[in-house]
Amino acid sequence: MSPGRPRDPGVDRRIAQAALDLFGEAGWAGFAMEAVARRAGVGKASLYLRWNSKEALLADAVTLRMSQVADVDTGTLRGDLTELAVQMLDLYAGPGSRAALRLSLEADAIPGVAEHYAAIRLSQVLAARAIVRRGIDRGELAADAPVTLLLDTLTGGAMMHALTTPADLMASLNRDIRAHAERLVGFLLRAVATQPAGSDLATTEGNGP
Amino acid sequence: MSPGRPRDPGVDRRIAQAALDLFGEAGWAGFAMEAVARRAGVGKASLYLRWNSKEALLADAVTLRMSQVADVDTGTLRGDLTELAVQMLDLYAGPGSRAALRLSLEADAIPGVAEHYAAIRLSQVLAARAIVRRGIDRGELAADAPVTLLLDTLTGGAMMHALTTPADLMASLNRDIRAHAERLVGFLLRAVATQPAGSDLATTEGNGP
Repeated sequence: MSPGRPRDPGVDRRIAQAALDLFGEAGWAGFAMEAVARRAGVGKASLYLRWNSKEALLADAVTLRMSQVADVDTGTLRGDLTELAVQMLDLYAGPGSRAALRLSLEADAIPGVAEHYAAIRLSQVLAARAIVRRGIDRGELAADAPVTLLLDTLTGGAMMHALTTPADLMASLNRDIRAHAERLVGFLLRAVATQPAGSDLATTEGNGP
Repeated sequence: MSPGRPRDPGVDRRIAQAALDLFGEAGWAGFAMEAVARRAGVGKASLYLRWNSKEALLADAVTLRMSQVADVDTGTLRGDLTELAVQMLDLYAGPGSRAALRLSLEADAIPGVAEHYAAIRLSQVLAARAIVRRGIDRGELAADAPVTLLLDTLTGGAMMHALTTPADLMASLNRDIRAHAERLVGFLLRAVATQPAGSDLATTEGNGP
């Protein structure tokens, strides 16, 4: 905790989580370096050595802790969509859920954070579209399938489920996230199925071209 | 605008909207009677004549301006779900969208507002479940249909669509809300259809025994 200590990724990670937690609870109006330091158990001087402003700290925390929604190529549409649903449920039912909601409201007004948040949102959109494109290429999804509706209902359905789960059932949802993601995807695949969902058209990855 | 003037529902409504707008932008941390008065174009004294605290003002604003998601019995499952989707899109794409999101984060921490918001949320859940129950009674929906998934994806899909619509396309979405609601409901009904969605099992209301 002495200011001169070399950087430790574990400490950076703890500080980033503390920053997101505080931002989630108090918003930008209640965000202060001193409070983050206290929450992370480090000295304020140590925080200022790493970040010279609270904008920079929050921007790094967002980048470090909130880039988890990524494109995962499992080889099937059902598998890929399930991974996406798991990541959305993790985001909105997990410890960063309040920060994620706050960002959707406040990111635009915070200098330096808006662009990081926009980049993360864009990467989520690109990952989702890549999943759909692979599904069309494999013939699991019709070329004219209602892609926007599928993705809105998948990501929105996961988000709404997490948001409307009562606090006393949240631990149980967090244990059950994969099973819920599978039910959600199974339900939505019935809406887009041109053939029975989960058909055997899937190929394994990595054996191209 | 003199303090002694009789209450005028138009003024109350304007104040309520100003209160929600300010809350949406600045959150509870930035919510103040004086700023609401200025935004609504009324005197601060006039505001205090009506509400003796900012908690009471926001609670009334929430009740006045955010109770719109209600049970509408159109006589068909498709029609009822479309009304629900229109109301969700109105809520999250309309002028109160930021306030609605703020409330999901902050309502629990605001004395007197938490219970109003919880009551509104509960009424939305009850309305949605009534729609589903009528659909089952009319045979439009199987008795063991995945109701939670249908409602999560309908309300979450509407919310996500509104939240991810870029600012420059928001006016166009607001003109197109009913058409989008119809597409969303048509998509989801394919996931639950036990028979072609929009079948003729619908009865007209009000002719009962």
